[in-house]
Amino acid sequence: MKLVIGNKNYSSWSLRPWLLLRQAGVDFEEIPVSLFAPGSAEQIARYSPAAKVPVLIDGSVVVWDSLAISEYVAERLPEKRLWPADPAERAHARAICAEMHAGFANLRSQLPMNATAVLPGRGWNVAVQRDVERVARIWGELRERNAARGPFLFGDFTVADAYYAPVVSRFATYGIHLPDAAKAYADFILALPSMQQWIAGARAEREFVVADEPYRLAPERADAIIIG
Amino acid sequence: MKLVIGNKNYSSWSLRPWLLLRQAGVDFEEIPVSLFAPGSAEQIARYSPAAKVPVLIDGSVVVWDSLAISEYVAERLPEKRLWPADPAERAHARAICAEMHAGFANLRSQLPMNATAVLPGRGWNVAVQRDVERVARIWGELRERNAARGPFLFGDFTVADAYYAPVVSRFATYGIHLPDAAKAYADFILALPSMQQWIAGARAEREFVVADEPYRLAPERADAIIIG
Ligand SMILES: N[C@@H](CCC(=O)N[C@@H](CS)C(=O)NCC(=O)O)C(=O)O
Ligand SMILES: N[C@@H](CCC(=O)N[C@@H](CS)C(=O)NCC(=O)O)C(=O)O
Repeated sequence: MKLVIGNKNYSSWSLRPWLLLRQAGVDFEEIPVSLFAPGSAEQIARYSPAAKVPVLIDGSVVVWDSLAISEYVAERLPEKRLWPADPAERAHARAICAEMHAGFANLRSQLPMNATAVLPGRGWNVAVQRDVERVARIWGELRERNAARGPFLFGDFTVADAYYAPVVSRFATYGIHLPDAAKAYADFILALPSMQQWIAGARAEREFVVADEPYRLAPERADAIIIG
Repeated sequence: MKLVIGNKNYSSWSLRPWLLLRQAGVDFEEIPVSLFAPGSAEQIARYSPAAKVPVLIDGSVVVWDSLAISEYVAERLPEKRLWPADPAERAHARAICAEMHAGFANLRSQLPMNATAVLPGRGWNVAVQRDVERVARIWGELRERNAARGPFLFGDFTVADAYYAPVVSRFATYGIHLPDAAKAYADFILALPSMQQWIAGARAEREFVVADEPYRLAPERADAIIIG
Protein backbone atom coordinates (compact mmCIF):
# COMPACT_ATOMS: atom_id res chain seq x y z
CA MET A 1 0.00 0.00 0.00
CA LYS A 2 1.03 3.59 -0.61
CA LEU A 3 -0.24 6.58 1.35
CA VAL A 4 -0.09 10.08 -0.07
CA ILE A 5 0.19 12.55 2.80
CA GLY A 6 0.64 16.30 3.27
CA ASN A 7 3.12 18.13 5.51
CA LYS A 8 3.41 16.27 8.78
CA ASN A 9 3.49 19.49 10.78
CA TYR A 10 0.13 20.69 9.46
CA SER A 11 -1.89 17.91 7.86
CA SER A 12 -4.26 16.61 10.50
CA TRP A 13 -6.22 14.61 7.93
CA SER A 14 -3.05 12.81 6.82
CA LEU A 15 -2.06 11.82 10.35
CA ARG A 16 -5.23 9.74 10.82
CA PRO A 17 -4.69 6.97 8.22
CA TRP A 18 -0.90 7.15 8.70
CA LEU A 19 -1.28 6.34 12.39
CA LEU A 20 -3.89 3.69 11.61
CA LEU A 21 -1.51 1.87 9.26
CA ARG A 22 1.42 2.21 11.68
CA GLN A 23 -0.58 0.94 14.64
CA ALA A 24 -1.87 -1.93 12.50
CA GLY A 25 1.74 -2.83 11.74
CA VAL A 26 1.25 -2.44 7.99
CA ASP A 27 4.34 -1.89 5.89
CA PHE A 28 3.43 0.95 3.53
CA GLU A 29 5.17 3.47 1.33
CA GLU A 30 4.77 7.16 2.16
CA ILE A 31 4.33 9.60 -0.69
CA PRO A 32 4.79 13.06 0.84
CA VAL A 33 3.42 16.07 -1.01
CA SER A 34 3.73 19.70 -0.02
CA LEU A 35 0.49 21.53 0.70
CA PHE A 36 2.13 24.89 0.00
CA ALA A 37 4.78 24.58 -2.71
CA PRO A 38 3.91 26.02 -6.12
CA GLY A 39 2.12 23.39 -8.20
CA SER A 40 1.07 21.39 -5.16
CA ALA A 41 -2.63 21.51 -6.09
CA GLU A 42 -1.84 19.96 -9.47
CA GLN A 43 0.38 17.34 -7.82
CA ILE A 44 -2.36 16.34 -5.36
CA ALA A 45 -4.95 16.26 -8.15
CA ARG A 46 -2.85 13.62 -9.92
CA TYR A 47 -3.54 11.27 -7.01
CA SER A 48 -7.01 12.29 -5.87
CA PRO A 49 -10.17 13.20 -7.78
CA ALA A 50 -11.15 15.29 -4.75
CA ALA A 51 -7.80 17.12 -4.97
CA LYS A 52 -7.02 16.53 -1.29
CA VAL A 53 -4.71 14.41 0.83
CA PRO A 54 -4.63 11.76 2.22
CA VAL A 55 -5.01 9.19 -0.57
CA LEU A 56 -4.44 5.44 -0.23
CA ILE A 57 -3.24 3.47 -3.23
CA ASP A 58 -3.60 -0.29 -3.00
CA GLY A 59 -2.76 -1.77 -6.38
CA SER A 60 -5.48 -0.54 -8.74
CA VAL A 61 -7.67 0.74 -5.91
CA VAL A 62 -7.43 4.45 -5.09
CA VAL A 63 -9.24 5.62 -1.97
CA TRP A 64 -9.45 9.25 -0.95
CA ASP A 65 -10.68 10.80 2.29
CA SER A 66 -9.35 9.76 5.68
CA LEU A 67 -12.62 8.14 6.80
CA ALA A 68 -13.13 6.10 3.62
CA ILE A 69 -9.47 5.04 3.83
CA SER A 70 -10.01 3.93 7.43
CA GLU A 71 -13.05 1.84 6.47
CA TYR A 72 -11.12 0.33 3.57
CA VAL A 73 -8.13 -0.61 5.72
CA ALA A 74 -10.38 -2.05 8.44
CA GLU A 75 -12.15 -4.24 5.87
CA ARG A 76 -8.94 -5.22 4.12
CA LEU A 77 -7.24 -6.32 7.37
CA PRO A 78 -10.06 -7.89 9.41
CA GLU A 79 -7.56 -9.71 11.65
CA LYS A 80 -6.37 -6.33 12.97
CA ARG A 81 -9.84 -5.60 14.40
CA LEU A 82 -9.58 -1.90 13.65
CA TRP A 83 -13.19 -1.35 14.68
CA PRO A 84 -14.61 -2.69 17.96
CA ALA A 85 -15.99 -6.23 17.52
CA ASP A 86 -19.30 -5.53 19.29
CA PRO A 87 -21.91 -3.97 16.92
CA ALA A 88 -23.10 -1.36 19.45
CA GLU A 89 -19.51 -0.37 20.27
CA ARG A 90 -18.66 -0.30 16.58
CA ALA A 91 -21.59 2.06 15.97
CA HIS A 92 -20.37 4.22 18.85
CA ALA A 93 -16.83 4.31 17.43
CA ARG A 94 -18.14 5.25 14.00
CA ALA A 95 -20.40 7.93 15.47
CA ILE A 96 -17.50 9.71 17.19
CA CYS A 97 -15.34 9.42 14.07
CA ALA A 98 -18.11 10.82 11.87
CA GLU A 99 -18.75 13.56 14.44
CA MET A 100 -15.09 14.57 14.19
CA HIS A 101 -15.07 14.23 10.41
CA ALA A 102 -17.89 16.74 9.86
CA GLY A 103 -17.86 18.73 13.08
CA PHE A 104 -15.79 20.59 15.66
CA ALA A 105 -15.54 23.55 13.29
CA ASN A 106 -14.38 25.97 15.98
CA LEU A 107 -11.65 23.72 17.29
CA ARG A 108 -10.46 22.92 13.80
CA SER A 109 -10.34 26.48 12.51
CA GLN A 110 -9.01 28.13 15.68
CA LEU A 111 -6.51 25.48 16.77
CA PRO A 112 -5.01 24.24 13.48
CA MET A 113 -2.62 21.34 13.78
CA ASN A 114 0.96 22.48 14.22
CA ALA A 115 2.77 19.48 15.59
CA THR A 116 6.09 21.19 16.39
CA ALA A 117 4.96 24.47 17.95
CA VAL A 118 3.99 25.33 21.50
CA LEU A 119 1.48 28.18 21.47
CA PRO A 120 -0.35 28.14 24.80
CA GLY A 121 -3.53 30.21 24.82
CA ARG A 122 -3.52 31.01 21.10
CA GLY A 123 -6.84 30.67 19.31
CA TRP A 124 -8.85 29.85 22.40
CA ASN A 125 -12.34 31.30 22.75
CA VAL A 126 -15.68 30.28 24.23
CA ALA A 127 -16.82 28.45 21.09
CA VAL A 128 -13.54 26.50 21.03
CA GLN A 129 -14.09 25.64 24.68
CA ARG A 130 -17.47 24.05 23.85
CA ASP A 131 -15.70 21.80 21.33
CA VAL A 132 -12.94 21.00 23.84
CA GLU A 133 -15.53 20.01 26.41
CA ARG A 134 -17.32 17.73 23.98
CA VAL A 135 -14.02 15.99 23.10
CA ALA A 136 -13.13 15.66 26.79
CA ARG A 137 -16.55 14.11 27.46
CA ILE A 138 -16.13 11.62 24.58
CA TRP A 139 -12.70 10.56 25.83
CA GLY A 140 -13.58 10.63 29.52
CA GLU A 141 -16.71 8.49 29.20
CA LEU A 142 -15.02 5.87 27.05
CA ARG A 143 -11.92 5.67 29.24
CA GLU A 144 -14.06 5.27 32.34
CA ARG A 145 -16.10 2.51 30.72
CA ASN A 146 -13.20 0.66 29.08
CA ALA A 147 -10.28 1.19 31.48
CA ALA A 148 -10.11 -2.50 32.43
CA ARG A 149 -9.80 -3.56 28.79
CA GLY A 150 -6.80 -1.48 27.76
CA PRO A 151 -5.48 2.07 27.40
CA PHE A 152 -7.25 3.07 24.15
CA LEU A 153 -10.76 4.52 23.79
CA PHE A 154 -12.32 1.09 23.35
CA GLY A 155 -9.60 -0.81 25.24
CA ASP A 156 -7.61 -1.97 22.21
CA PHE A 157 -6.54 0.44 19.49
CA THR A 158 -9.27 1.27 16.92
CA VAL A 159 -9.88 3.79 14.13
CA ALA A 160 -11.37 6.09 16.78
CA ASP A 161 -7.95 6.59 18.40
CA ALA A 162 -6.42 7.44 15.03
CA TYR A 163 -9.27 9.83 14.38
CA TYR A 164 -8.74 11.81 17.59
CA ALA A 165 -4.92 11.78 17.44
CA PRO A 166 -4.70 15.16 15.65
CA VAL A 167 -6.82 16.64 18.44
CA VAL A 168 -4.35 15.28 20.99
CA SER A 169 -1.62 17.09 19.07
CA ARG A 170 -3.61 20.32 18.95
CA PHE A 171 -4.40 20.26 22.66
CA ALA A 172 -0.67 19.87 23.36
CA THR A 173 0.29 22.71 21.00
CA TYR A 174 -2.24 25.17 22.41
CA GLY A 175 -1.90 24.12 26.05
CA ILE A 176 -5.56 23.22 26.42
CA HIS A 177 -6.59 22.33 29.95
CA LEU A 178 -8.34 18.96 30.23
CA PRO A 179 -10.05 17.01 33.00
CA ASP A 180 -7.92 14.20 34.45
CA ALA A 181 -9.29 11.24 32.49
CA ALA A 182 -9.07 13.08 29.17
CA LYS A 183 -5.61 14.39 30.05
CA ALA A 184 -4.34 10.90 30.86
CA TYR A 185 -5.64 9.61 27.54
CA ALA A 186 -4.09 12.50 25.60
CA ASP A 187 -0.73 11.97 27.31
CA PHE A 188 -0.86 8.28 26.51
CA ILE A 189 -1.56 8.87 22.80
CA LEU A 190 1.09 11.57 22.52
CA ALA A 191 3.70 9.20 23.95
CA LEU A 192 2.96 6.37 21.48
CA PRO A 193 6.07 5.54 19.44
CA SER A 194 4.02 5.93 16.23
CA MET A 195 2.89 9.41 17.28
CA GLN A 196 6.44 10.39 18.23
CA GLN A 197 7.63 9.12 14.87
CA TRP A 198 5.12 11.39 13.10
CA ILE A 199 6.25 14.37 15.20
CA ALA A 200 9.90 13.59 14.44
CA GLY A 201 8.94 13.64 10.76
CA ALA A 202 7.27 17.02 11.25
CA ARG A 203 10.44 18.32 12.95
CA ALA A 204 12.52 17.31 9.94
CA GLU A 205 10.36 19.43 7.65
CA ARG A 206 11.59 22.89 6.85
CA GLU A 207 8.51 24.26 5.09
CA PHE A 208 6.19 26.56 7.00
CA VAL A 209 3.58 29.23 6.33
CA VAL A 210 5.19 32.58 7.13
CA ALA A 211 1.87 34.42 7.15
CA ASP A 212 0.60 32.05 9.86
CA GLU A 213 3.88 31.57 11.70
CA PRO A 214 6.01 34.72 11.48
CA TYR A 215 7.90 33.70 14.65
CA ARG A 216 9.58 30.90 12.71
CA LEU A 217 11.54 33.59 10.86
CA ALA A 218 12.81 35.18 14.05
CA PRO A 219 12.78 32.52 16.73
CA GLU A 220 14.81 34.66 19.14
CA ARG A 221 11.91 37.12 19.30
CA ALA A 222 9.20 34.48 19.19
CA ASP A 223 6.26 34.59 21.57
CA ALA A 224 5.99 30.91 20.90
CA ILE A 225 8.41 28.16 21.67
CA ILE A 226 9.20 26.05 18.66
CA ILE A 227 10.23 22.51 19.32
CA GLY A 228 12.51 21.34 16.59
CA MET B 1 -36.05 1.27 14.61
CA LYS B 2 -36.78 4.90 15.37
CA LEU B 3 -35.25 7.85 13.55
CA VAL B 4 -35.10 11.30 15.13
CA ILE B 5 -35.15 13.90 12.36
CA GLY B 6 -35.26 17.69 12.05
CA ASN B 7 -37.58 19.84 9.92
CA LYS B 8 -38.02 18.14 6.55
CA ASN B 9 -37.81 21.43 4.71
CA TYR B 10 -34.37 22.28 6.08
CA SER B 11 -32.60 19.27 7.55
CA SER B 12 -30.35 17.88 4.85
CA TRP B 13 -28.57 15.59 7.32
CA SER B 14 -31.89 14.04 8.36
CA LEU B 15 -32.95 13.30 4.78
CA ARG B 16 -29.99 10.97 4.21
CA PRO B 17 -30.77 8.16 6.69
CA TRP B 18 -34.52 8.68 6.23
CA LEU B 19 -34.21 8.00 2.50
CA LEU B 20 -31.85 5.11 3.17
CA LEU B 21 -34.37 3.40 5.45
CA ARG B 22 -37.27 4.10 3.06
CA GLN B 23 -35.38 2.79 0.02
CA ALA B 24 -34.33 -0.26 2.03
CA GLY B 25 -38.01 -0.88 2.76
CA VAL B 26 -37.51 -0.70 6.51
CA ASP B 27 -40.53 0.02 8.65
CA PHE B 28 -39.39 2.67 11.12
CA GLU B 29 -40.90 5.23 13.44
CA GLU B 30 -40.19 8.90 12.78
CA ILE B 31 -39.54 11.18 15.73
CA PRO B 32 -39.70 14.71 14.36
CA VAL B 33 -38.08 17.51 16.34
CA SER B 34 -38.05 21.20 15.51
CA LEU B 35 -34.66 22.78 14.86
CA PHE B 36 -36.01 26.24 15.71
CA ALA B 37 -38.67 26.02 18.41
CA PRO B 38 -37.70 27.24 21.89
CA GLY B 39 -36.16 24.36 23.84
CA SER B 40 -35.24 22.41 20.70
CA ALA B 41 -31.56 22.18 21.65
CA GLU B 42 -32.53 20.55 24.95
CA GLN B 43 -34.95 18.22 23.18
CA ILE B 44 -32.29 17.08 20.68
CA ALA B 45 -29.73 16.66 23.47
CA ARG B 46 -32.06 14.15 25.11
CA TYR B 47 -31.57 11.87 22.10
CA SER B 48 -28.02 12.63 20.99
CA PRO B 49 -24.80 13.18 22.94
CA ALA B 50 -23.63 15.31 20.00
CA ALA B 51 -26.81 17.41 20.31
CA LYS B 52 -27.63 17.06 16.61
CA VAL B 53 -30.11 15.23 14.41
CA PRO B 54 -30.42 12.65 12.91
CA VAL B 55 -30.28 9.95 15.58
CA LEU B 56 -31.16 6.29 15.07
CA ILE B 57 -32.56 4.30 17.99
CA ASP B 58 -32.51 0.53 17.59
CA GLY B 59 -33.49 -1.01 20.90
CA SER B 60 -30.68 -0.13 23.30
CA VAL B 61 -28.37 1.07 20.52
CA VAL B 62 -28.30 4.82 19.89
CA VAL B 63 -26.38 5.96 16.81
CA TRP B 64 -25.85 9.61 15.94
CA ASP B 65 -24.48 11.19 12.79
CA SER B 66 -25.89 10.41 9.34
CA LEU B 67 -22.77 8.56 8.16
CA ALA B 68 -22.43 6.35 11.23
CA ILE B 69 -26.19 5.63 10.99
CA SER B 70 -25.74 4.62 7.34
CA GLU B 71 -22.90 2.23 8.20
CA TYR B 72 -24.95 0.77 11.04
CA VAL B 73 -28.02 0.20 8.86
CA ALA B 74 -25.90 -1.31 6.07
CA GLU B 75 -24.33 -3.76 8.54
CA ARG B 76 -27.62 -4.53 10.25
CA LEU B 77 -29.39 -5.34 6.96
CA PRO B 78 -26.71 -7.05 4.84
CA GLU B 79 -29.36 -8.55 2.53
CA LYS B 80 -30.26 -5.04 1.35
CA ARG B 81 -26.74 -4.54 -0.05
CA LEU B 82 -26.66 -0.87 0.87
CA TRP B 83 -23.00 -0.59 -0.14
CA PRO B 84 -21.72 -1.92 -3.48
CA ALA B 85 -20.65 -5.58 -3.20
CA ASP B 86 -17.29 -5.09 -4.93
CA PRO B 87 -14.56 -3.86 -2.51
CA ALA B 88 -13.14 -1.27 -4.92
CA GLU B 89 -16.62 0.07 -5.69
CA ARG B 90 -17.47 0.03 -2.02
CA ALA B 91 -14.36 2.11 -1.29
CA HIS B 92 -15.36 4.50 -4.08
CA ALA B 93 -18.89 4.83 -2.65
CA ARG B 94 -17.51 5.49 0.82
CA ALA B 95 -15.03 8.04 -0.54
CA ILE B 96 -17.75 10.15 -2.17
CA CYS B 97 -19.93 9.92 0.94
CA ALA B 98 -17.05 10.97 3.18
CA GLU B 99 -16.16 13.74 0.74
CA MET B 100 -19.72 15.06 1.05
CA HIS B 101 -19.78 14.55 4.80
CA ALA B 102 -16.77 16.79 5.47
CA GLY B 103 -16.61 18.91 2.33
CA PHE B 104 -18.51 21.06 -0.15
CA ALA B 105 -18.52 23.92 2.33
CA ASN B 106 -19.45 26.55 -0.23
CA LEU B 107 -22.35 24.62 -1.64
CA ARG B 108 -23.62 23.76 1.81
CA SER B 109 -23.42 27.25 3.26
CA GLN B 110 -24.61 29.16 0.17
CA LEU B 111 -27.34 26.80 -1.03
CA PRO B 112 -28.93 25.55 2.20
CA MET B 113 -31.55 22.89 1.78
CA ASN B 114 -35.02 24.35 1.40
CA ALA B 115 -37.09 21.57 -0.11
CA THR B 116 -40.25 23.60 -0.80
CA ALA B 117 -38.84 26.83 -2.21
CA VAL B 118 -37.80 27.77 -5.73
CA LEU B 119 -35.05 30.39 -5.58
CA PRO B 120 -33.23 30.34 -8.91
CA GLY B 121 -29.88 32.13 -8.88
CA ARG B 122 -29.82 32.75 -5.12
CA GLY B 123 -26.55 32.03 -3.35
CA TRP B 124 -24.61 31.18 -6.48
CA ASN B 125 -20.98 32.35 -6.76
CA VAL B 126 -17.76 31.10 -8.29
CA ALA B 127 -16.79 29.03 -5.24
CA VAL B 128 -20.21 27.37 -5.25
CA GLN B 129 -19.75 26.64 -8.94
CA ARG B 130 -16.54 24.71 -8.19
CA ASP B 131 -18.48 22.52 -5.76
CA VAL B 132 -21.30 22.08 -8.30
CA GLU B 133 -18.80 20.97 -10.92
CA ARG B 134 -17.22 18.44 -8.60
CA VAL B 135 -20.65 16.97 -7.79
CA ALA B 136 -21.56 16.88 -11.50
CA ARG B 137 -18.30 15.06 -12.24
CA ILE B 138 -18.93 12.49 -9.48
CA TRP B 139 -22.44 11.79 -10.76
CA GLY B 140 -21.55 11.95 -14.45
CA GLU B 141 -18.62 9.53 -14.23
CA LEU B 142 -20.54 6.98 -12.19
CA ARG B 143 -23.64 7.16 -14.38
CA GLU B 144 -21.55 6.70 -17.48
CA ARG B 145 -19.75 3.70 -16.02
CA ASN B 146 -22.80 2.04 -14.45
CA ALA B 147 -25.66 2.93 -16.81
CA ALA B 148 -26.16 -0.67 -17.94
CA ARG B 149 -26.56 -1.88 -14.34
CA GLY B 150 -29.39 0.40 -13.22
CA PRO B 151 -30.39 4.04 -12.68
CA PHE B 152 -28.54 4.74 -9.40
CA LEU B 153 -24.92 5.85 -8.99
CA PHE B 154 -23.66 2.28 -8.68
CA GLY B 155 -26.53 0.72 -10.65
CA ASP B 156 -28.62 -0.39 -7.68
CA PHE B 157 -29.47 1.98 -4.85
CA THR B 158 -26.69 2.44 -2.26
CA VAL B 159 -25.87 4.78 0.64
CA ALA B 160 -24.18 7.06 -1.90
CA ASP B 161 -27.53 7.93 -3.49
CA ALA B 162 -29.00 8.76 -0.10
CA TYR B 163 -25.94 10.86 0.65
CA TYR B 164 -26.29 13.02 -2.45
CA ALA B 165 -30.11 13.32 -2.30
CA PRO B 166 -30.03 16.63 -0.36
CA VAL B 167 -27.77 18.03 -3.10
CA VAL B 168 -30.36 17.01 -5.70
CA SER B 169 -32.92 18.97 -3.69
CA ARG B 170 -30.65 22.00 -3.43
CA PHE B 171 -29.86 22.05 -7.14
CA ALA B 172 -33.63 22.01 -7.85
CA THR B 173 -34.33 24.82 -5.37
CA TYR B 174 -31.59 27.11 -6.67
CA GLY B 175 -32.02 26.24 -10.37
CA ILE B 176 -28.45 25.04 -10.77
CA HIS B 177 -27.50 24.23 -14.35
CA LEU B 178 -26.05 20.73 -14.78
CA PRO B 179 -24.50 18.76 -17.64
CA ASP B 180 -26.89 16.21 -19.20
CA ALA B 181 -25.78 13.05 -17.38
CA ALA B 182 -25.83 14.77 -13.98
CA LYS B 183 -29.18 16.41 -14.78
CA ALA B 184 -30.74 13.08 -15.75
CA TYR B 185 -29.56 11.53 -12.48
CA ALA B 186 -30.85 14.47 -10.43
CA ASP B 187 -34.25 14.32 -12.14
CA PHE B 188 -34.44 10.59 -11.51
CA ILE B 189 -33.69 10.95 -7.77
CA LEU B 190 -36.10 13.87 -7.37
CA ALA B 191 -38.91 11.79 -8.91
CA LEU B 192 -38.41 8.80 -6.58
CA PRO B 193 -41.59 8.16 -4.56
CA SER B 194 -39.51 8.24 -1.35
CA MET B 195 -38.10 11.64 -2.24
CA GLN B 196 -41.54 12.98 -3.14
CA GLN B 197 -42.84 11.66 0.15
CA TRP B 198 -40.15 13.63 2.03
CA ILE B 199 -41.01 16.79 0.07
CA ALA B 200 -44.71 16.30 0.81
CA GLY B 201 -43.76 16.10 4.48
CA ALA B 202 -41.80 19.33 4.13
CA ARG B 203 -44.84 20.98 2.51
CA ALA B 204 -46.99 20.02 5.45
CA GLU B 205 -44.66 21.85 7.86
CA ARG B 206 -45.60 25.37 8.83
CA GLU B 207 -42.42 26.38 10.62
CA PHE B 208 -39.90 28.54 8.82
CA VAL B 209 -37.06 30.94 9.60
CA VAL B 210 -38.37 34.45 8.98
CA ALA B 211 -34.89 35.98 9.01
CA ASP B 212 -33.86 33.65 6.18
CA GLU B 213 -37.15 33.54 4.33
CA PRO B 214 -39.00 36.84 4.71
CA TYR B 215 -40.97 36.15 1.51
CA ARG B 216 -42.90 33.43 3.32
CA LEU B 217 -44.60 36.17 5.32
CA ALA B 218 -45.75 38.01 2.21
CA PRO B 219 -45.95 35.49 -0.59
CA GLU B 220 -47.77 37.93 -2.90
CA ARG B 221 -44.65 40.12 -2.94
CA ALA B 222 -42.17 37.23 -2.97
CA ASP B 223 -39.24 37.19 -5.33
CA ALA B 224 -39.30 33.46 -4.81
CA ILE B 225 -41.96 30.99 -5.71
CA ILE B 226 -42.92 28.81 -2.80
CA ILE B 227 -44.25 25.40 -3.67
CA GLY B 228 -46.69 24.29 -1.05
N1 LIG C 1 -12.33 15.10 4.43
C1 LIG C 1 -10.99 14.99 3.87
C2 LIG C 1 -10.26 16.29 4.08
C3 LIG C 1 -8.90 16.32 3.46
C4 LIG C 1 -8.25 17.71 3.47
O1 LIG C 1 -8.94 18.73 3.64
N2 LIG C 1 -6.92 17.74 3.27
C5 LIG C 1 -6.17 18.98 3.19
C6 LIG C 1 -4.86 18.89 3.94
S1 LIG C 1 -5.03 18.46 5.63
C7 LIG C 1 -5.79 19.23 1.74
O2 LIG C 1 -5.49 18.31 0.99
N3 LIG C 1 -5.78 20.48 1.29
C8 LIG C 1 -5.32 20.81 -0.03
C9 LIG C 1 -6.31 21.64 -0.76
O3 LIG C 1 -7.44 21.83 -0.26
O4 LIG C 1 -5.95 22.09 -1.86
C10 LIG C 1 -10.31 13.80 4.54
O5 LIG C 1 -10.77 13.36 5.60
O6 LIG C 1 -9.36 13.23 3.97
N1 LIG D 1 -22.46 15.40 10.81
C1 LIG D 1 -23.79 15.40 11.38
C2 LIG D 1 -24.41 16.76 11.24
C3 LIG D 1 -25.75 16.89 11.86
C4 LIG D 1 -26.26 18.31 11.91
O1 LIG D 1 -25.51 19.30 11.78
N2 LIG D 1 -27.59 18.45 12.13
C5 LIG D 1 -28.25 19.75 12.26
C6 LIG D 1 -29.54 19.81 11.48
S1 LIG D 1 -29.42 19.43 9.77
C7 LIG D 1 -28.61 19.96 13.70
O2 LIG D 1 -28.98 19.05 14.39
N3 LIG D 1 -28.51 21.19 14.20
C8 LIG D 1 -28.95 21.51 15.51
C9 LIG D 1 -27.89 22.20 16.30
O3 LIG D 1 -26.76 22.33 15.81
O4 LIG D 1 -28.24 22.64 17.41
C10 LIG D 1 -24.57 14.29 10.68
O5 LIG D 1 -24.15 13.87 9.59
O6 LIG D 1 -25.57 13.79 11.22
